[in-house]
Amino acid sequence: MDVELINTGSELLLGRILNTHQQWLGRRLADLGRPVARQVTVPDRSQDIENAVRDALGRADLVITTGGLGPTGDDLTRERIAALLGRRLIHSPEIEERIRGYFASRGRPVPARTHVETHVPEGARVLVNRHGTASGLAFHLSPNPYRAGGRPSWLMLLPGPPRELHPMFDQELVPLLDEVLPVADGFRSLTFKTTGIGESNMEERLLNPLTPLMAAGLEVGFCARIGEVDVRFVGRGPQSGAWIDAASIELQKAAGEFIFGQGDDTLELTVVRELTRRGMTLALAESCTGGHVANRMTNIPGASAILRAGYVTYSNDAKSSALGVPPELIARHGAVSEPVARSMAEGARRAGGADYGLSFTGIAGPGGGSDEKPVGTVFIGLAGPEGTTVTRQANRFDRETFKYASAQQGLDTLRRRILGLPPIQDRVHRS
Amino acid sequence: MDVELINTGSELLLGRILNTHQQWLGRRLADLGRPVARQVTVPDRSQDIENAVRDALGRADLVITTGGLGPTGDDLTRERIAALLGRRLIHSPEIEERIRGYFASRGRPVPARTHVETHVPEGARVLVNRHGTASGLAFHLSPNPYRAGGRPSWLMLLPGPPRELHPMFDQELVPLLDEVLPVADGFRSLTFKTTGIGESNMEERLLNPLTPLMAAGLEVGFCARIGEVDVRFVGRGPQSGAWIDAASIELQKAAGEFIFGQGDDTLELTVVRELTRRGMTLALAESCTGGHVANRMTNIPGASAILRAGYVTYSNDAKSSALGVPPELIARHGAVSEPVARSMAEGARRAGGADYGLSFTGIAGPGGGSDEKPVGTVFIGLAGPEGTTVTRQANRFDRETFKYASAQQGLDTLRRRILGLPPIQDRVHRS
Repeated sequence: MDVELINTGSELLLGRILNTHQQWLGRRLADLGRPVARQVTVPDRSQDIENAVRDALGRADLVITTGGLGPTGDDLTRERIAALLGRRLIHSPEIEERIRGYFASRGRPVPARTHVETHVPEGARVLVNRHGTASGLAFHLSPNPYRAGGRPSWLMLLPGPPRELHPMFDQELVPLLDEVLPVADGFRSLTFKTTGIGESNMEERLLNPLTPLMAAGLEVGFCARIGEVDVRFVGRGPQSGAWIDAASIELQKAAGEFIFGQGDDTLELTVVRELTRRGMTLALAESCTGGHVANRMTNIPGASAILRAGYVTYSNDAKSSALGVPPELIARHGAVSEPVARSMAEGARRAGGADYGLSFTGIAGPGGGSDEKPVGTVFIGLAGPEGTTVTRQANRFDRETFKYASAQQGLDTLRRRILGLPPIQDRVHRS
Repeated sequence: MDVELINTGSELLLGRILNTHQQWLGRRLADLGRPVARQVTVPDRSQDIENAVRDALGRADLVITTGGLGPTGDDLTRERIAALLGRRLIHSPEIEERIRGYFASRGRPVPARTHVETHVPEGARVLVNRHGTASGLAFHLSPNPYRAGGRPSWLMLLPGPPRELHPMFDQELVPLLDEVLPVADGFRSLTFKTTGIGESNMEERLLNPLTPLMAAGLEVGFCARIGEVDVRFVGRGPQSGAWIDAASIELQKAAGEFIFGQGDDTLELTVVRELTRRGMTLALAESCTGGHVANRMTNIPGASAILRAGYVTYSNDAKSSALGVPPELIARHGAVSEPVARSMAEGARRAGGADYGLSFTGIAGPGGGSDEKPVGTVFIGLAGPEGTTVTRQANRFDRETFKYASAQQGLDTLRRRILGLPPIQDRVHRS
């Protein structure tokens, strides 16, 4: 099945906003067995939208557009597509009712300009918007005048705001796809999330055990990001479930300790989940990561139950006053050192009244490095009921990537401790 | 001038990585007077890359590709473009020398597979890569066989990794563009960053004062994001500089208090800069924002000089032990309240030994709301030498957006205090 994605929006092309739709829809559609073959962004101009839709309909079984369904002057997609397909726009009392309810529940009058959002092109199926006023639309083109031999295509129009698009995709579009564009029998995919191991090391470990399954038809993909390697299994046909089950067992045997989750799991989600399950708590002491770890953890709903406190102790004074790190210790070893990381972790655990204390002290750069402790050096301390460990890592990146990589290592150190695995010493990331 | 962007990479289409090139290049090129008219992503397949390049060359004066210049098996762009254009690949001793130096400075042997990176298609100009091994390439197609009448085009190939692409763009590509594709005389653009005012309010304030300049030819654009509105002025022709100077003065008169920066400035950068300039320091007390504010501030190099400490006090115990908030106060008013926000701000200022203490306590959701204090309610406290203020805001968003919007308001409250402006009470953001 050929799938193409069209993002409309001049602000995307001018770089004023980030195109997150490409990643979100790309991942969702790949996991549904309908990978996107081509993505294009065009400005909010009728002719550009029409050209892009016509081109895509000439090639694809499914064309998805985003944006341009709202009530303002540069929302042109609904009208232009209706004109292109020669469909009349018909007023929908149901949509009008829904828009009225949307504003009533917020205690606001219905703006007159939302009236255009009640227009539905003849023959289109409506995708309900439960988080906004712009309905999605789905068209079956059969025959499709833009495709060789009139081969049919589906054209689906989604609204631009992610908080409207995401639930509409999951609740309205996925069931429709399963009904009208089912994937080949037995498509299955499963992505494992791993950390603490490099991509080539992972590939080497899996090569031999997975060779027979790959010969049979299992697809194996790797995707390396900072501090993470995804391992993705895709199978088609009646054996796909059995292949993926077998491959999952082989992955567990070859590299099980590095797996922290599946699908969209994050390391912070895994840590919050594992601590919650055990009724255990955490306190953070962040110097070089500057609140990055606390921020990620508190993005997870329910984090308040396990995160007792976080201390962002950039200054030496704060290390001493908030965490009780002895000033002599800092004077003797330097703030970026094994003993200070240890003292910070133990101090956070004590001050926060938590089961675990996790600390970070390092040199984010661009300044502050030395021969002995170059930019990128970070000491990660973990204090807990089992004692305290400190690891030294080298993350030679720009500032934000340094924080991210260090956070991955710290969260993984905690994950490994909870699971009874030893910490990984001296990880070196080179840029 | 027509500019098109082609991003190559199957992982972009599968959503495994986020396409940040579109935004970065889109913004840079717009600011250089060469806005991107169309962007497409294609997989790492020779035929798809060739088709996309040929299509774009049929329309555009400048085509930029990203990715596919590295040494691995799925890096196909260099070879495929050379074949498409009928250019022989010639070994470049200069590039070989540079690659050798790159690895020598890192104390690593030169991998054999980097040899393909020394190949330059005949007649191409080399764009030096100072942060990696894959050189960029620029082709002048004159005549351009894919364009009506053979109209000439430039085709420029850039590497995929952002840390290689960004400096290459600024140091190599921009000077080349100025030499071979100069923009119309007198192009100028300037973007002002504002916060604390809505897009429609901003438009209304500017409509009258800017009407004469717009009639003369000044373009004015607005872009609203959470907690920010960009105001962008673009001028072409000999008067552009005068127009933009005059428009900037009108903007200052109409809404000067809301301007926090220009171009790529962020609110956290502005706050770090203003505090640094005054030799003043800050301590943070974050409950509902959970370290988000500290994380953003510490992304700014030099933040260590002004950020004394941050306290992530999710739990009531931590509010009392780290910040000295009386437990009775929490019991009487609740943790999300004006008096607790006040006590947190003053406690952070005292405990951190800082000039200012900035506090956040609120209900991020999804749970925890009540009729009196619904999800999205946040109290922001600011303690300083001038006294303490608390504002109440309503940010009804998902969890991460709630944190972002609250941080914008808190940082702006501090910015306004430093500049002697009153705080903005009761901002309500509705989703």
